[in-house]
Amino acid sequence: MTTVLGSPERVTSEPAQGVGVAVVGAGYWGPNLIRNFAQLGDARVVAVCDQQPQRLQTIARRYPSVALTTDFSDMLADPAVEAVAIATPVSSHATLARQALLAGKHVLIEKPMTASVADAEMLVDLACQRRLTLMVDHTFIYTGAVQRIKQLVATEELGDLYYYDSVRVSLGAFQQDVSVVWDLAAHDLSIIDYIVPAKAQRISALAAAHFPGGVADVAYLTLQFDNNLIAHFHVNWLSPVKVRQVLIGGNRRMVLYDDIEPTEKVKVYDRGVLWTNDPSDLRRTVNVAYRLGDMYAPRLDQTEALEVECAHFIDCVRSGSTPQSDGEAGLRVVRLLAAAEQSLRDDGRPQVLSR
Amino acid sequence: MTTVLGSPERVTSEPAQGVGVAVVGAGYWGPNLIRNFAQLGDARVVAVCDQQPQRLQTIARRYPSVALTTDFSDMLADPAVEAVAIATPVSSHATLARQALLAGKHVLIEKPMTASVADAEMLVDLACQRRLTLMVDHTFIYTGAVQRIKQLVATEELGDLYYYDSVRVSLGAFQQDVSVVWDLAAHDLSIIDYIVPAKAQRISALAAAHFPGGVADVAYLTLQFDNNLIAHFHVNWLSPVKVRQVLIGGNRRMVLYDDIEPTEKVKVYDRGVLWTNDPSDLRRTVNVAYRLGDMYAPRLDQTEALEVECAHFIDCVRSGSTPQSDGEAGLRVVRLLAAAEQSLRDDGRPQVLSR
Amino acid sequence: MTTVLGSPERVTSEPAQGVGVAVVGAGYWGPNLIRNFAQLGDARVVAVCDQQPQRLQTIARRYPSVALTTDFSDMLADPAVEAVAIATPVSSHATLARQALLAGKHVLIEKPMTASVADAEMLVDLACQRRLTLMVDHTFIYTGAVQRIKQLVATEELGDLYYYDSVRVSLGAFQQDVSVVWDLAAHDLSIIDYIVPAKAQRISALAAAHFPGGVADVAYLTLQFDNNLIAHFHVNWLSPVKVRQVLIGGNRRMVLYDDIEPTEKVKVYDRGVLWTNDPSDLRRTVNVAYRLGDMYAPRLDQTEALEVECAHFIDCVRSGSTPQSDGEAGLRVVRLLAAAEQSLRDDGRPQVLSR
Amino acid sequence: MTTVLGSPERVTSEPAQGVGVAVVGAGYWGPNLIRNFAQLGDARVVAVCDQQPQRLQTIARRYPSVALTTDFSDMLADPAVEAVAIATPVSSHATLARQALLAGKHVLIEKPMTASVADAEMLVDLACQRRLTLMVDHTFIYTGAVQRIKQLVATEELGDLYYYDSVRVSLGAFQQDVSVVWDLAAHDLSIIDYIVPAKAQRISALAAAHFPGGVADVAYLTLQFDNNLIAHFHVNWLSPVKVRQVLIGGNRRMVLYDDIEPTEKVKVYDRGVLWTNDPSDLRRTVNVAYRLGDMYAPRLDQTEALEVECAHFIDCVRSGSTPQSDGEAGLRVVRLLAAAEQSLRDDGRPQVLSR
Repeated sequence: MTTVLGSPERVTSEPAQGVGVAVVGAGYWGPNLIRNFAQLGDARVVAVCDQQPQRLQTIARRYPSVALTTDFSDMLADPAVEAVAIATPVSSHATLARQALLAGKHVLIEKPMTASVADAEMLVDLACQRRLTLMVDHTFIYTGAVQRIKQLVATEELGDLYYYDSVRVSLGAFQQDVSVVWDLAAHDLSIIDYIVPAKAQRISALAAAHFPGGVADVAYLTLQFDNNLIAHFHVNWLSPVKVRQVLIGGNRRMVLYDDIEPTEKVKVYDRGVLWTNDPSDLRRTVNVAYRLGDMYAPRLDQTEALEVECAHFIDCVRSGSTPQSDGEAGLRVVRLLAAAEQSLRDDGRPQVLSR
Repeated sequence: MTTVLGSPERVTSEPAQGVGVAVVGAGYWGPNLIRNFAQLGDARVVAVCDQQPQRLQTIARRYPSVALTTDFSDMLADPAVEAVAIATPVSSHATLARQALLAGKHVLIEKPMTASVADAEMLVDLACQRRLTLMVDHTFIYTGAVQRIKQLVATEELGDLYYYDSVRVSLGAFQQDVSVVWDLAAHDLSIIDYIVPAKAQRISALAAAHFPGGVADVAYLTLQFDNNLIAHFHVNWLSPVKVRQVLIGGNRRMVLYDDIEPTEKVKVYDRGVLWTNDPSDLRRTVNVAYRLGDMYAPRLDQTEALEVECAHFIDCVRSGSTPQSDGEAGLRVVRLLAAAEQSLRDDGRPQVLSR
Repeated sequence: MTTVLGSPERVTSEPAQGVGVAVVGAGYWGPNLIRNFAQLGDARVVAVCDQQPQRLQTIARRYPSVALTTDFSDMLADPAVEAVAIATPVSSHATLARQALLAGKHVLIEKPMTASVADAEMLVDLACQRRLTLMVDHTFIYTGAVQRIKQLVATEELGDLYYYDSVRVSLGAFQQDVSVVWDLAAHDLSIIDYIVPAKAQRISALAAAHFPGGVADVAYLTLQFDNNLIAHFHVNWLSPVKVRQVLIGGNRRMVLYDDIEPTEKVKVYDRGVLWTNDPSDLRRTVNVAYRLGDMYAPRLDQTEALEVECAHFIDCVRSGSTPQSDGEAGLRVVRLLAAAEQSLRDDGRPQVLSR
Repeated sequence: MTTVLGSPERVTSEPAQGVGVAVVGAGYWGPNLIRNFAQLGDARVVAVCDQQPQRLQTIARRYPSVALTTDFSDMLADPAVEAVAIATPVSSHATLARQALLAGKHVLIEKPMTASVADAEMLVDLACQRRLTLMVDHTFIYTGAVQRIKQLVATEELGDLYYYDSVRVSLGAFQQDVSVVWDLAAHDLSIIDYIVPAKAQRISALAAAHFPGGVADVAYLTLQFDNNLIAHFHVNWLSPVKVRQVLIGGNRRMVLYDDIEPTEKVKVYDRGVLWTNDPSDLRRTVNVAYRLGDMYAPRLDQTEALEVECAHFIDCVRSGSTPQSDGEAGLRVVRLLAAAEQSLRDDGRPQVLSR
């Protein structure tokens, strides 16, 4: 048989160009990182590390030219590895990222960045000292939907914000070491951190755990801001139906962001309340009128968020520019998660967030 | 022209049968009560009272044989009035209901029953002493949907309850004297009070008000129960879209109650989590499996809830039996509302509910 | 008891102003006409006629001052009756309308106008001769949704039309003398007749009847136009779910009109195909690109269509202007229905529509 | 770096087990076939053929061990190729499949099987003579949804069928040589052929083409059966929204199959009409009652249809058993498509389908 493209070997052994990326953790999320980095023109997946050999075997079948190892130090010793993407359990993030930074590698960490504020601060400082790129995998901020909502807020199309209400519920996937707060709410806190410029003053959280020895599987978080903006997050691993919905109310326009919708994920409503309270009116009556205008659903960039994110990471590594989800963003989210956990331990009492 | 049915007068002057009902308050809700009592076979609307004459004029056009007055005492003096339905602002409920009970009339009060716990207790006591029917207009518990969900809980088809999550949001209708908690959450607290036999131990609430001089227009309430059951309520007058959705998770089955759906309002999911935590396992691993079975949407009674409720009120008046939404139910809901308000004043700190 | 508004009699016996309307047929639709005419400021419902006395009794209870009769001629003899609204079975429309016009009354007829083209032509001629208003109850063209779609077509916002696809299916309500074509498709043909200025050239129809002695309960109609515009109608009395959906494709924009949606009934999509067929290209390849822009849902007038329509009828009666759904529109729809029926008898063969 | 799994070469060079499959056509659909055959335990993708070298290059990057060629005869000459999957334009199906069968290879062909009835008959005969497996890629019949609906029909849970109504519309993807009928309706005809045991007697079709030199892009097909069953298919490349919906009405139950729904794709409604036509009734009145029972959505097998199908093909190749979508099924669908095309040319006149 004529193989018109020459031998397969020659085809795959492209000249080693692009940033050399290693991925540690080949469980649920790691393969997605591998697939996206492998598709980029200016990156190469040079190594994958996991403690379970059978996972590496699966990777080997799909990516035969990638070096595979169970030894992380070994991987760090490889000079072809310029950047490390960490997709392991949260408890291991800080140790692995620290080792990688000390070895002079740029680092991308799955969310949440670390399991403690101290660890997150340590990584931020270390990356700063070594002048290495530190980025957190806040995937959702790289979606066309969130990018568009950020723009709606930044251009004041929504006006002053009244509330931000988020629901992220479905059946599974239970984590063993991390509660639904650290798992699911991390997504939503990274989104609001990206979209809303104001800084919350207090956070409260209530939750319930329904299995012996299990972590919280249903939780409600509330953020309170200076200007009466209230943000609320419902995260739940025990819902029979999948809901991924955010409502944002502003005094000019309001947004419904429904991530389950296949195409019209973001709807902008020209609806609101006109409220007139005449101070000279002794009866203190209030006149309320409703504005009911058009709705529109802007066309969104449909590129896979992880593809955008991986390309952005490589770009930051090469140019030295600051990632949209840099270590500081990761740290801010970890601070919110830690304060929420403190509120849970404190029976839901609001925790003041330091400036 | 031959009028085959005789003179219209003769047709309308039916023999005065059925319980004589008077309605006080002909604003938004009163006309619905009038219409439903007027359609019942064993009740008659004999009088309507409102302070605004133009409202009475509208009633006169549709119900020419009903006596109209702006004087409540006058109405109570009419011996044809056996029962009074109160559809006035909340702040006036206690005074009007007390007068009616003292005049020997049975009473139906729009929700919430009163603006304070003391007033609610006073009315319950008074009705008890006078052996008069006291019922609260907890409309939703008379819907086919809520009746069916109560049955699903009572027959243990859902099993032990994990959570009850309710969202009731839309644009308007702003109240001037009552916050969104007393307005909208009153509905949801009456529903859970009817469906869930357990008694909550603590209630927390957080809210925001966005207009000068205005009451809270967005609020989140959380009820915590003994057995890790958590209930949560999102009420909001500022949502661009209307959502009326309840998720109930049980260890056997789960329910989605979507009141916006025209027909399939209640969906029962045979879905859940199988959780095994082997205590002898030193590594403390947890095995989680998911049960993904069929969903079914039971056929529901489509009768208008207010029609069922008005008929039930008349039946209780005649038979002396206890209404499903009696004064005690109204009192329980007012207690929850008052405790939620206390939590709001107390920065969201949980309030212990007395037994 | 003080009756502040004076005796109810005085309140209801307003000075007899407005056009005197009589309604014949008090079954399913008649009461809706009565209710809407009764609410208008410049019309009065003076009489109602039906062959079933128990139906009149129901009317008497709600409208005690209206004259009631089982004798249509009797009703026509009443000089207070200036206009007659006909809401009887289709087979009786022509006879009743002819009598009314001969008696000098203006006429509003429920759709479809008549059971035959000859009858429709007769009524149009008669009304023209007598200079009386003849209007057909094409209710849907008076909705905010259809009004808006007509505007989108008229202003060429949609561009040249590619297709018009309509689905109107639900369970029931079976008619005994009229097939699903004359019942449901009459609605859709009246809508397209109102919206689309072009005239169809051919009509085809296929249907099925599933009950012994029954009429067609599922049918498909197709209209073909000169310029490759194709219109298609699916009507079905046997669907387990209710669908009321129209898709309209134009070369500039496309519309989804979903009448089940509570608020966003009309969605306008900036989507389409860019097609370039280079005639000089010997390989005759075609380049297709897709335009995927924003969607918007315009705010619609929410007034009940029948209220708009009844007011429009009264206005036409008073001013002598031509109704939007005049006898000619009714005739055009009957012509389409009759041709569709001919196609059904002819095994679905297309019928040429005369100019 | 230690590569714990040995050299990647060793890992991928598994012992050559399983049926050797070659795929011809690496455009849109071919890569899906390659991916699924590659994942199967008892099959191996040994070769891929395409006329465009750059497509082969893409394949090479992902599947480095697969032989690549632009010469189909070359591929057939390879003894490692036991079966050929054809994913090329329809016009080439017959020639390629014939060559493959003559070379002793089992064949899987993308739908529609061929562009003419004669070609389809030729392939069926040839495969029969050579005792080779001939299967058509009617993907949808291997979905959990269609499998379940077939079962609902086969067990008579739906009862006698009234109608089958299908809508398959979206924007794109335009074909250049094949109309929307041969492209999209081929799916639906393969589904009804699989589900409904009865044989249609007549087929009608109407369509429109909206681009110069273009094929039909909107079409309506109707199948009529002996027992008043009517089936209808709406296919459209110009819809702004994606709809994939089938309604099936039976006298016991009715089904809504919505392929866009993420999980509850099949809903079974216990709804229907009770029709009594008393023959002794001289007035010929008909009594209609509605049955409005529960709805349920059965849990469906979520396995990717193409995975099920590829495994089934390999199983049939090995065991010699007849595929569910064998050449005869492909031929039946091609016969319907050809008759529909004849009806299009004949202005929509129904074409009698030979027994």
